[in-house]
Amino acid sequence: MALYLIGLGLGDEKDITVKGLEIVRQCDEVFLEAYTSILPGIQLEKLEQFYQKKIQLADRELVEQGCESKFLHVVQQGKKVALLVVGDPFGATTHSDLVVRAKQLSIPVKIIHNASIMNAIGATGLQLYQFGYTVSIVFFEKNWRPDSCYDRIKMNRKNGLHTLCLLDIKVKEQSAENLVRNVKQYEPPRFMTVNQCISQLIELEQTRQENVYDPNKTMCIGCARLGNWENELIVAGTMNELLQVDFGTPLHSFIICAEQLHDLEKEFLHFSSVEYLKPPKVNTSSSSTQEEEEEEEEEFEVDAQDIKLVMSSVPGVSRDSAIAALRKHRGDIMLSIKLLKGQQ
Amino acid sequence: MALYLIGLGLGDEKDITVKGLEIVRQCDEVFLEAYTSILPGIQLEKLEQFYQKKIQLADRELVEQGCESKFLHVVQQGKKVALLVVGDPFGATTHSDLVVRAKQLSIPVKIIHNASIMNAIGATGLQLYQFGYTVSIVFFEKNWRPDSCYDRIKMNRKNGLHTLCLLDIKVKEQSAENLVRNVKQYEPPRFMTVNQCISQLIELEQTRQENVYDPNKTMCIGCARLGNWENELIVAGTMNELLQVDFGTPLHSFIICAEQLHDLEKEFLHFSSVEYLKPPKVNTSSSSTQEEEEEEEEEFEVDAQDIKLVMSSVPGVSRDSAIAALRKHRGDIMLSIKLLKGQQ
Repeated sequence: MALYLIGLGLGDEKDITVKGLEIVRQCDEVFLEAYTSILPGIQLEKLEQFYQKKIQLADRELVEQGCESKFLHVVQQGKKVALLVVGDPFGATTHSDLVVRAKQLSIPVKIIHNASIMNAIGATGLQLYQFGYTVSIVFFEKNWRPDSCYDRIKMNRKNGLHTLCLLDIKVKEQSAENLVRNVKQYEPPRFMTVNQCISQLIELEQTRQENVYDPNKTMCIGCARLGNWENELIVAGTMNELLQVDFGTPLHSFIICAEQLHDLEKEFLHFSSVEYLKPPKVNTSSSSTQEEEEEEEEEFEVDAQDIKLVMSSVPGVSRDSAIAALRKHRGDIMLSIKLLKGQQ
Repeated sequence: MALYLIGLGLGDEKDITVKGLEIVRQCDEVFLEAYTSILPGIQLEKLEQFYQKKIQLADRELVEQGCESKFLHVVQQGKKVALLVVGDPFGATTHSDLVVRAKQLSIPVKIIHNASIMNAIGATGLQLYQFGYTVSIVFFEKNWRPDSCYDRIKMNRKNGLHTLCLLDIKVKEQSAENLVRNVKQYEPPRFMTVNQCISQLIELEQTRQENVYDPNKTMCIGCARLGNWENELIVAGTMNELLQVDFGTPLHSFIICAEQLHDLEKEFLHFSSVEYLKPPKVNTSSSSTQEEEEEEEEEFEVDAQDIKLVMSSVPGVSRDSAIAALRKHRGDIMLSIKLLKGQQ
């Protein structure tokens, strides 16, 4: 008997570890922390199907207040109970609390670790050991615009450290009205976007004016769906540059880089810079006619992935040639590459 | 075609993710970063057997200097190549470098994240967002006793942050003599222990005398084999207390806590404190005879795990009763518990 806290990683149902999967299948009761279940990729039905196990949802209330009756007493009856957690079980304080309660009852707790946002940010190219205090950016309300994160970012920047910003998630929140009336009806879930985070940070800089960061100069990184490599997005640039980027579906996170970057960090960031990712314009003539402008807009549709594919498939081809060729004969080129690959 | 960097996690061959395993099995060439292969649990033969794949060792030289010919050019020929890395692929700078080189050649790189020491330390009960700069503690040599880590720890402590210390690993090191003679003969691998780390830190405090930490007061945590739950060890105490603990086989790591701990962190640490883990002495009389002393030594052999097992199997039994019972009839009790479990 034991309570197993099992990390699911950051992508989909297959990001669980082999060991984690074996344990889930052996458990008598399996719970999924509920507020995570709305993440793209992690859906209850898909998990149940892949794990071949009935899974119960455990919302925050249950994990925090009902854990004795739902988890701990069940374990004491000799059962194996698993709580599935997106990322790593120790990303959130809640689980420390659960472990303490289990230990007080002398219940063995086994942790199956997995990737979490705290190490997946290494994929940005920033060195993990150079991160300072991690801050949470909460949704500003009309009369509540907390600025403690500004002091933390200031401290990190002063000490030459990067700052990871974890962006607010509002799930199972009641409106003020429903709260007063004690009506258990919840608002639709909200996930803070990189853009909302940047707007709040710019407001804080304007209010505090301590030059902790410069929206036009300080290097930052916006991340979406980090750790889910099939559709993750990492873009580096200034706050004002990143404000223009659509990062898509949740979860987002944000990094404010240290003032000084290592050479290797700079080289790495180059490949996720706004400049590098922006589809290239060849015609930059300022006196373009309407026709040329239309052509220019079409040029924007050359996909960065396609350029990379051509360059890696045809040794020696330059970036410009690849773009020019794709623009003229994209269909033929893609077919050739497919054929080429089939032969190899 | 792509280069896959696949994290193996921190335990054994089953800590790879399901997705990682699927990809390994599809790859044309699979490499294992060599200096990691001597970690307990991660052995080449076991990996090959479980992954059903031939695996080649890639030492640091190969990853750093031979990566073009061994990995990147092979990918350019349309092959799928995997590099297996203990922990997460972005724990070490080396892989940032590899990714940059791949991107320069427009080679797609896919990252399969996993747990790393950077998030597994959450299992100590310390809150991950409250960690500052991560320091590396290198083996002191006769004439080389670097103290830059002291400044980093000072900065973290001043800012109320915990410090994770990564302990030195020396693999494929040549002796000074062999280096001069250019003889490629390597010294046996060395892994720094928690105890060696503490001795060096105490020396630094004695040399610098800036009261950054107090070997008799500052709360620290020694960790061994973190993330490998079958034999990990986490012990909290002062440096001088932890100096007395045998942490066993590698890898070890060390944490110097912030001066102020949250209540929940304190509660959690209590369960891994030297005091809590120490098998209890019942007879604390100071006038003990030799016979009593012998008996006292015997008492030390009551295993903390066994005490927990009895307490969790027999509802309502007190800690003292469990200890007393185990001391007298350990064999019978263990048998009873086994039978009890068989019935449930």
